Amino acid sequence: MSKSGAVLVLSGPSGAGKSSLLNEIIDDIGACYFSISTTTRPIRKGEKDGVHYHFADEEEFKQDIEDNNFLEYALVHGNYYGTSIKPVREALNEGKLVLFDIDVQGNTAVNNRLGDITTSVFITPPTLSELKKRLEGRSTDSQEVMDARLKMAKREIQRVSEYDYLIINDDLQRAAAILRQIAITARMKTSSNEVNDFVQKWEDIEQ
Amino acid sequence: MSKSGAVLVLSGPSGAGKSSLLNEIIDDIGACYFSISTTTRPIRKGEKDGVHYHFADEEEFKQDIEDNNFLEYALVHGNYYGTSIKPVREALNEGKLVLFDIDVQGNTAVNNRLGDITTSVFITPPTLSELKKRLEGRSTDSQEVMDARLKMAKREIQRVSEYDYLIINDDLQRAAAILRQIAITARMKTSSNEVNDFVQKWEDIEQ
Repeated sequence: MSKSGAVLVLSGPSGAGKSSLLNEIIDDIGACYFSISTTTRPIRKGEKDGVHYHFADEEEFKQDIEDNNFLEYALVHGNYYGTSIKPVREALNEGKLVLFDIDVQGNTAVNNRLGDITTSVFITPPTLSELKKRLEGRSTDSQEVMDARLKMAKREIQRVSEYDYLIINDDLQRAAAILRQIAITARMKTSSNEVNDFVQKWEDIEQ
Repeated sequence: MSKSGAVLVLSGPSGAGKSSLLNEIIDDIGACYFSISTTTRPIRKGEKDGVHYHFADEEEFKQDIEDNNFLEYALVHGNYYGTSIKPVREALNEGKLVLFDIDVQGNTAVNNRLGDITTSVFITPPTLSELKKRLEGRSTDSQEVMDARLKMAKREIQRVSEYDYLIINDDLQRAAAILRQIAITARMKTSSNEVNDFVQKWEDIEQ
């Protein structure tokens, strides 16, 4: 049976250490595809189209919504954000592990469409005050943005039970070892289509 | 956070190679507890109480049903079979991985009670004719028992999609490598209680 890919969702507050963790494990978990969101918000200084986001105009975006091309999308402060299904499907057909860095709502959407091959992980600092400290340490965010991040973290942590795994990132190496293990296993999920094909074939031979 | 245990359910037809696979991986997956069923059927030659089954009389068994002591139980051909919750809880409190070798119905029951910490795997030979060949090769079963096993396998394979993972055991070493990976990751599931405790503490510190 040639194995198609699988999905690993990573959620958790900005400041949880998702990027650092991914850097630790990325060489050990086989062929991956990082899902890149599409947005209609203006490109900012230092951002690259196709790296940080796919930048699209509103007309294109709305057409894609109509054509059912998004795995999930949302309108936030007047700007659209979404995940195109096409590159995800392509990566899955190539047997890749598709990585999503999305919020709790995004996780729900991905599970609705690709639940059979999805493994979800919520990554969090050990406490809210530790998160606050980390965000202050970065000092790239305004007080306003930081307050919004903390508020969102408080809201999201209430929904941790919707995830397959919870990783408390109090020690990077320890947390990376757990995420590495989960990511390697994530690939072993079999899609409903593959299961159906297998069951079909399993019985045919008996006739 | 001190980690309590988790559950790994193994299902699949007799002849799928579950025991051989477990023997291959058992030294690599940390502290385990094999759940042993309780039954009211008479002990057979070569069987040991507490190894193959816990043997109980019907009165005891019915009392345990009344006391809600079973994770799951069933009446099959006039004999009761069930899984006591108590030793499972004890093993979980000791942080062990509890292994169940149960059928599809048993998997449903375990998931209803312990779904948050349960990982389920269906193991099968590549085809029904291969299963037939393996059962014939063992030659320990009567034709009647073999027919019943094949019939049950046909029924159970229809419900493979209820499992987290499907392992096609066409090569023992390859299948063992996959099961080893899944078993190690299974332990990383966090119980709802642990999640609630964590969320509670996470917020308390902020005040």
